[in-house]
Formats: sequence, C-alpha cells, structure tokens
Amino acid sequence: MQVCDGIISADFIVTQNERREIVRDGAVAVRGARVAAIVSRVEAERDWAPAWRRSLGRAVILPGLINAHTHAPMTLLRGLADDLPLMEWLNKHIFPCESGLTPRMLEVGTALACAEMLSCGITAFADMYLNERQIYRTVDKIGMRALVGEGLFSFPSIGYADPAVAFDLAREQAGELAGHSRLRYAVCPHSIYTTGPEILEKSAALAAELDLPLHIHLAESGEETRMSLEMYGCRPVEVCRRAGILGPRTLAAHGVDLLEEEMELLAQNGVSIAHNPRSNMKLASGIAPVPALLALGCNVCLGTDGAAGNNRLNLFQEMSACALLHKVFSGDPTVLPAQTALDMATLHGARALSWPELGRLAPGGPADLAALDLASPGLTPLYNPVSQLVYAAGGHEVCLTMVEGRILYEQGRFSSLDYRELLLEARQLALLCAGNAA
Amino acid sequence: MQVCDGIISADFIVTQNERREIVRDGAVAVRGARVAAIVSRVEAERDWAPAWRRSLGRAVILPGLINAHTHAPMTLLRGLADDLPLMEWLNKHIFPCESGLTPRMLEVGTALACAEMLSCGITAFADMYLNERQIYRTVDKIGMRALVGEGLFSFPSIGYADPAVAFDLAREQAGELAGHSRLRYAVCPHSIYTTGPEILEKSAALAAELDLPLHIHLAESGEETRMSLEMYGCRPVEVCRRAGILGPRTLAAHGVDLLEEEMELLAQNGVSIAHNPRSNMKLASGIAPVPALLALGCNVCLGTDGAAGNNRLNLFQEMSACALLHKVFSGDPTVLPAQTALDMATLHGARALSWPELGRLAPGGPADLAALDLASPGLTPLYNPVSQLVYAAGGHEVCLTMVEGRILYEQGRFSSLDYRELLLEARQLALLCAGNAA
Repeated sequence: MQVCDGIISADFIVTQNERREIVRDGAVAVRGARVAAIVSRVEAERDWAPAWRRSLGRAVILPGLINAHTHAPMTLLRGLADDLPLMEWLNKHIFPCESGLTPRMLEVGTALACAEMLSCGITAFADMYLNERQIYRTVDKIGMRALVGEGLFSFPSIGYADPAVAFDLAREQAGELAGHSRLRYAVCPHSIYTTGPEILEKSAALAAELDLPLHIHLAESGEETRMSLEMYGCRPVEVCRRAGILGPRTLAAHGVDLLEEEMELLAQNGVSIAHNPRSNMKLASGIAPVPALLALGCNVCLGTDGAAGNNRLNLFQEMSACALLHKVFSGDPTVLPAQTALDMATLHGARALSWPELGRLAPGGPADLAALDLASPGLTPLYNPVSQLVYAAGGHEVCLTMVEGRILYEQGRFSSLDYRELLLEARQLALLCAGNAA
Repeated sequence: MQVCDGIISADFIVTQNERREIVRDGAVAVRGARVAAIVSRVEAERDWAPAWRRSLGRAVILPGLINAHTHAPMTLLRGLADDLPLMEWLNKHIFPCESGLTPRMLEVGTALACAEMLSCGITAFADMYLNERQIYRTVDKIGMRALVGEGLFSFPSIGYADPAVAFDLAREQAGELAGHSRLRYAVCPHSIYTTGPEILEKSAALAAELDLPLHIHLAESGEETRMSLEMYGCRPVEVCRRAGILGPRTLAAHGVDLLEEEMELLAQNGVSIAHNPRSNMKLASGIAPVPALLALGCNVCLGTDGAAGNNRLNLFQEMSACALLHKVFSGDPTVLPAQTALDMATLHGARALSWPELGRLAPGGPADLAALDLASPGLTPLYNPVSQLVYAAGGHEVCLTMVEGRILYEQGRFSSLDYRELLLEARQLALLCAGNAA
C-alpha cells in the first residue's frame, strides 16, 4: 500500500497536462503540499492508504485557477459606484475612498477577496496595491498563494508618505517573503502615467537585481495612450521598451490599446498579458486583441481586476466573458474555444506569475486544486467537461478548494477564516468607506 | 390582525414599481396567488397573522425574472457541440439530434430547464419549440408561468408530419390553454427563412382572431438578412411588415441586424425585442443595437435562448452580459446602467409577454418573486441593491423562488419535481442524444 495524506476522487479529472488529459473515474493522491499521484478510482481504493478520503462522485477536479491581476482590498469597495464615466468614478468615488483606507480595511478587504476567490476555485493570484504588507500577511494567514507587490508611484500613497522610500519598501517586502513557499514578490510600477521613466527604469533594475517578476498596468485604454503621447511623446509600450521593462518575467495587465507592431514586440519579448474582460467591458476600456496576441504566441492569461470595477473575483465568469466577447467581436464562433479559455485561466496564468509548476495537476506538482459539483443546476447533461467548465459553470458549483495540500474551502465552509465575522466587519467598514467617498 | 397565507421578510425589497421603490426591512404578504401587501418588517410582525413565515434577514426580494426567449427542451442538448461554425453546429449536431427527440426527451429537457430557471429566480418564460404540448404540460406540472407556442415551419417537424396541419395544431393548443392562469399561448412562426409569406400572414391572422401574442425569431444575424434578400428580395423586417406581423403583441427574438429605419419601424409599431446577449455572443451572431432601440422607446427585454447555444438559462448572467457588452461596444461606461438591465429582465419582459401585471411586486399583483441570500460570497459589502443584482450576483444566490404564491424552489430543493431522479434520467437520455448527433 502506498501512503499519502489524502485522496480525492471524482468522475472527471481535468489535468491540464501537456496532452490535456482528462482522467475518467480518477483520483488525486495528496502528500504534504504536493500531488503524490493521479490514478484511477479503482487503484486509489486498492493501492493507497490515505489518512482521509473525499469521494466526490459526480464532480470534476481541475487545477486551481489563477487570477493574474487583481487588487484584493478593493473588494471592500465592490459596487461603491457604478455606471459612471471613468474619471468621475475614479476622482469622486474610488480615490477619495482609497485615501481613507485603514490597515484594518486592507486586511478585511483582502480576506473578503480571498474568501470569494476560494469559493470559486481560485488558488493563486497576482496582487498589486497600496500598503501591500497588510495584504500579504492576510493572504498568508488564510493560506492562499499569491504574487504580491507594493504599487510604485511618483507621488505619495497610503503605503508611503514619500515616493523616495517606495523602492526601499519594495526591497524590504521582497526580503520578508524570500523563500516563502506560497508568497512571492513582484516589482510593481503602477503604470506609465502614474510613474515616470526614472521609476520604470529603477523597477526594471530592481527586478533584475533580485530576480523578481515585474507587474504593471499597460495599454489599458485609449485614454492611457493619449496621456502617454502627451507626457512622453510616445505610446505606452514604447515608454516601457525604453525603460527596459519588456521581458519574459513581465506581467502586463490589460493590453487593450495595442498596435500590431506593439503586439509583435510584446510577443517577441515574452511579456505576459493579463486580460481582464469583465473589467474592460464594464469600464468601457476597450476590447483587447486577444485572438491576435495568442496567434503571435503571446502568453495571454486572465484576471478579474479589482472588485470595485468588475464587480466579482470569479474566473469562471472571466473565462466565459473572454470566449464570448472575442467570438462576437471577431464574428467567428470558433475563435477562443473553451480549451483556450481554460488554458488562459490555468497554464498561462502560471507562466505569467513566473510560477510554471502551477496551473496543472501532475505527480510531484503543487496540490492546488478545485472540485466542482456536477449535480448543481445548470451542469446536466455533460457532453464535454471543458466546455461545461467554460460555458455552463458559474463558479459557485465549486465544492472544494485546496492550496498546497490544505483544504481551505469545502461545501460553503472556510477552514482558515471566520466567514460570518468577516461579513459583519466588512459591512461595518463599508459604512465608513461610503462616508469617505461621499 | 390581517390574515394571509404567508409572509416573507428581508432586508431589501426591490419592488420594480413605477417609482422603482426599494423597501428596507420589508415584508411581502402573500394571499393565494397574489401579493396581499408590501409592508415594513415591523408591521408584518405586528399586524399580520400568516399561516407561515420566512424571515430571510440579509436577503433581497425581487419580482421573479422573465426569460423572454427560450427553447426549454434544448437544455438536454447543453454543450452537445460548441465552438463550431453556425451551419456545421446546426446541420451536423443540433438538427440531427432534434429530429430524434422523443416525447420523453422533451419532457425531461423541459423539466431540466424549469429546475435551472427556478434555481436562479426565473418565474416566467416565453418558449417556442416543437411538439409544444409535451412542453407546456410539463411546465404546468412544475407550476411555472409561460407563454408557449408550437414552432410553425413550411416543412414537417417532430411536432407535425405535415405542415398543412400546423395551424390546426396551434389552434388546438391555444384552445387547451384558454383560461389557464399560468400558461398562455402565442402564435409562433419560427422565422422568415423557415416559413414563407403565406405562413407569416396566416400567423398574423390567427393571432388577431384569437387575440394572442405572436413570437418569432427576427433579424438574428447578417446570414438571415442575406437569406431574406435572396428568398424575398427584401430584408427580414420588411418581410414581416408586409405580412402584417409588426404590432404591439409581437415578440421578436434577437433584433441584431437592424437598420436605423427598421429600428424606428419596430419602435413605432410597439414590437418588443428579446435581446439574447450570451447566445448572440457565443454564436457570433452580432451585437444588437440595444441602446439605440431603448432610446427610440422600443421595449427591449432579455432572453437566454436555448441552452444548446448559451449554455445557461440564467437571467442574472444575461443582465450582466447585456450591461457589459453594450458599455464596451459603445465605449461609454454609463450606457445601460444596472437599473435598465433589471427593468429589461422584469418590467420589459412582462410587457413583451403581453402579461403586464408580471415583473413587479405590488399589492394585488401576482405573487411571483425570488429572494437572494446576500451572505453568499461575492455580495458583501452592498452599497446599492440594484447594482449588486446586476453586476455581482451570479443567480445561484437565489434561496427562494415563488410562482403564483407557491414556493417552487427553496434552499436547493424543488417542491414540484424530483431533482435527483431528473438528473439521472437526463444523463441517460443525453447518451441517446449524443448518439443521434454523431
């Protein structure tokens, strides 16, 4: 008998391995933080002696999804203001509210985000925000995986009173996380329009020096391009190229307003693009040229962006929105098939976070996974599991989410946070947020 | 003390009345099939003596949503084939499979559809399919509300071997439903390209004679327009105009490929348009000019279309897709605000079904309602209930659905169908469907 900690079995295991194998009547054996084996249900019963078993039956197990771009604490601002012009939304509502965010609000917003993400099968995410230390400490307590980074600006933020110390802060935070199994650090110049060439160049240098990924907002809208032309006399991608930011460890969020030659440059340089379809749609930022980027070999992954804009942190919704948006926009229903959308939410996300062992289920790999209950209304019948995950699943069918071998969410219950307490406190803090925004 | 059957109380009641009033800490008193009163929670406790109470607490009660265009039995074909060119999808997969649909498959597909719709707060729908009698008898057993009709074609269908008898069949079915409180009949010429001027004219005449609504697919895609030009030498709206089909009791599904003057004609004639954003996106049919239609005063409502194409029957997803799609397509985040999307899924749907007392909660009106659990992950904090319903809710948060005063769904359980048995049979029948399609 082979020994392991736990065995989870289900009707389907969507491995996302190189052959995109789907194991029917399969089981995942978990030992410590890793997948020990993927076997048939019969073998799992016969050959393995686990400490615990979950026999999910009519369910599908898949790699934990990867949210490649978000701002976790903004979950506290979900629905604070909607249906407004972008500048009014930012200047009259979001910025005033953000400037009043206390450390406790950051913690509670982050915990809310983690609960929501876990409840719909997200196990890892890339976060960029202000006072990021509050955020990653909260994520650490909850047990999720994240690539985190302090947003670097050319002006003060709630994370630092003087932008001159921002890089020291980033260096300190990166040091604090060195060697952490679940938390990694990215250098995060916020965008070309909130920084300047000096900050961008220093960011590139710091990322190179510490061998870290770099995470930036890039080419989010025509408005950003106009600002770039006015500020620097060139377009956003060129600003980044000059600053030495375009490389294979760079994660650029959005990539909406791109010229053909810019797409080629991003692809050639191995830059990953985090596509945020629902955020781009809701804020009317534009439609990222995702099919063209994919055709050029660019690594395009999926993100939710912050909940203040989206208003959800649910990659099932993003997979579906992504596939549907690009079909109708291209006029071709074969564009962006279900398997591509799932790849974007798993394998591509892993590569974008510079964490390539994530996003698939394989022996020896991280035990980060989600399971969906197929008896949930809307998932019967099932002809193709991948199509079902992308076009029919809403995310709420997730019945179990595991990170690093630890079950953090199961059947509506969270093992590492007090959900009821969290909701109560979030509601109280939201009253203060609304006051700050008004 | 006032007497009633039941009282449901919640933190918010979104009435959708003329003033779009939202009652805080409110309660709905139900007597028989109707709303007896909408009162404060305090009054409900003090002045009312109901047979039963549901105190939902942190929840929102809203009018039952109205799915203004679907083909219920196609739920059995959900995900049968995806990501294909339209004609290959139809000719190689959907049509072969439909021609093999047995009466039992129609019943099971319809029951699956009803379960899914009830589980996400839909109380009424407009259905057009083949062998509609099987469908409405199933809907009747389950207790939902529907506007139903046999699809009329110029060729045989599984509903009739000879198209010459189709109108007799429709007349019979309409007679069978006359006076039914929950089921009403619509004359359903399928589309301009599957019928002909004679069938369209006879449909208009039958609808006028029996004082019935008329439900048709219209201007779904550029392909339909090309076929229309080839078959009739004019565009689809003109074909309908000539046949006398454009009137205030006409429900036209899709309305994607429309010229400005066609939009004006539809608006002037009081035609309702059922917009099916997810279906149009997934099949790459095009983007319906919804903001322009609304600006012209046209009654635009929301539908899911059949689950074979969508692949869900969930109006929360349609509300969100509708708002997001038209924001990004127009480049304006203020377009199609949350209240408009909710109006489309309620009040506009009611008008489109020629059933204007639906879609709102008012004393004396039908007791058709849904309640959402606001403690579900993703719905905290809450700054604006309507924004939350449209942008954050997924539909699975629905914890109670009532039609005609009867609770048909509550906390994952269905009162009028055996859900477990239904799933088992649907899975078996799906094997046969896959065989027919292959």
